Amino acid sequence: MQRNDDFQPRDPEFGERVRASFNRQPFMHHIGARITDVSPGRCTIHLPYRAELTQQHGYMHAGIMGTMADNAGGYAALSLMPPGKEVLTVEYKINLLQPGQGEAIVSRGRVLKAGRTLTICRSDVFNIVQGEEILCATAQFTMMAVAERR
Amino acid sequence: MQRNDDFQPRDPEFGERVRASFNRQPFMHHIGARITDVSPGRCTIHLPYRAELTQQHGYMHAGIMGTMADNAGGYAALSLMPPGKEVLTVEYKINLLQPGQGEAIVSRGRVLKAGRTLTICRSDVFNIVQGEEILCATAQFTMMAVAERR
Amino acid sequence: MQRNDDFQPRDPEFGERVRASFNRQPFMHHIGARITDVSPGRCTIHLPYRAELTQQHGYMHAGIMGTMADNAGGYAALSLMPPGKEVLTVEYKINLLQPGQGEAIVSRGRVLKAGRTLTICRSDVFNIVQGEEILCATAQFTMMAVAERR
Amino acid sequence: MQRNDDFQPRDPEFGERVRASFNRQPFMHHIGARITDVSPGRCTIHLPYRAELTQQHGYMHAGIMGTMADNAGGYAALSLMPPGKEVLTVEYKINLLQPGQGEAIVSRGRVLKAGRTLTICRSDVFNIVQGEEILCATAQFTMMAVAERR
Repeated sequence: MQRNDDFQPRDPEFGERVRASFNRQPFMHHIGARITDVSPGRCTIHLPYRAELTQQHGYMHAGIMGTMADNAGGYAALSLMPPGKEVLTVEYKINLLQPGQGEAIVSRGRVLKAGRTLTICRSDVFNIVQGEEILCATAQFTMMAVAERR
Repeated sequence: MQRNDDFQPRDPEFGERVRASFNRQPFMHHIGARITDVSPGRCTIHLPYRAELTQQHGYMHAGIMGTMADNAGGYAALSLMPPGKEVLTVEYKINLLQPGQGEAIVSRGRVLKAGRTLTICRSDVFNIVQGEEILCATAQFTMMAVAERR
Repeated sequence: MQRNDDFQPRDPEFGERVRASFNRQPFMHHIGARITDVSPGRCTIHLPYRAELTQQHGYMHAGIMGTMADNAGGYAALSLMPPGKEVLTVEYKINLLQPGQGEAIVSRGRVLKAGRTLTICRSDVFNIVQGEEILCATAQFTMMAVAERR
Repeated sequence: MQRNDDFQPRDPEFGERVRASFNRQPFMHHIGARITDVSPGRCTIHLPYRAELTQQHGYMHAGIMGTMADNAGGYAALSLMPPGKEVLTVEYKINLLQPGQGEAIVSRGRVLKAGRTLTICRSDVFNIVQGEEILCATAQFTMMAVAERR
């Protein structure tokens, strides 16, 4: 299956930029998420299981799965933006395949198409159960480049 | 436009059931959300603005908008379920129309079609800004009825 | 529910423009669809039932439901564009609620938010069965304004 | 990235069944689509470019892209169904990445998760341009197993 995975970053400091933006998100601190990997067009985010993020059966809340998918996709998109641009989520669609459970949630986002205005991304979200990754959600995103605000 | 808005609840205690399920969700307590209204096929959820739920620009996180939309849709669906059934989110799609800001977020979910296995819902999410409601996100959901677990 | 339904067209000849664009679509002629109404931010498209557009059970094909939803949404968006702009579909999501059957399909598209670059639309698709409209699909769209090509 | 690609067909004659169902679809004959490959959990559909399937710029219509994605996903799902079951599309979401153009459209569907009631699929749609495949659309589907009707 042919896909362009040879994305060239337009900002050599894309890694620092992605991490700095992530670190300015209070909600990420609040839930305990962190970035574990960034490369051009890709980003991985990790979230340890926490009881306060669950729904009524003790599974991670669907909204948390969406949050994890959204952030991995958004930062995959940001990794390809030129300096002075940032990324807004226009829309996303997520299928929940398995309940969110285990030791942690890992979300892997990647860019499918990087346009000048719009970037289309996919995120796969995994449960880590006894060290093994099990696909538990998959999502598609439309992201928009906007001028950075300070 | 013809739509069936005359949903008949199959459980006369649908209201208590919806509220009891909501109250068993640790994540809802954690973020400070509460149900303000339930009727057959409809549910409204309210969340005061909180700094720890924001992204890097001080807007409510897209994941929180998805959470709010998901819960209002899910409980709209649950309000029509017979006793012994509950609701899982199969998938959702959300368009973010405005940044999440203001005093609070209100999410209004309603059932578009209640099937035996699948229920299709829509949620509209509003910012409350100086007391006025402004549409900031809209979402479509597929929910599935499953046997209640205890 | 507050929504901005007071859209002001930026091209006084929006109606002619929408119809002219529609008429340049070979696929619309091919399947027999026609526009029955255009107003600022809204468009209605009508398609008589045809056996060659069906799937294996004699219902209108899901792809035809998507086509009808897409065109009504796209022309609702175009009705608000300034001269010199046209509309591309970025993405859509459709829930199929009932099989496509009856005498005809009617798709009603409307704009939820008209931005400078992106327009978010919804389309509801109805079966006409013995003269009555029954909701059979509902869809959300992201449309993008692009410079008109000649 | 862990995914279950070892799907076991529950009907040894899945290939014949998929092709027979496809051949009963008038709309597929009408547009000139054909199945070029079926394996457990996967299906590929091919459609030569045709002027009557285009929109106003001579590109394949977005509704045709959705149709191609839907059918490849649906037949990927059907390939895993036990005898006596068939597949309905509950919903889909498609991102259009490139205009539909070239010599032909190829749609590759595959199952992400095969449940008893619901099957989640993805389809990637490619333009064939001078013999090369270029990703032009990607879609996610929820399919439902229903009793076969005769």
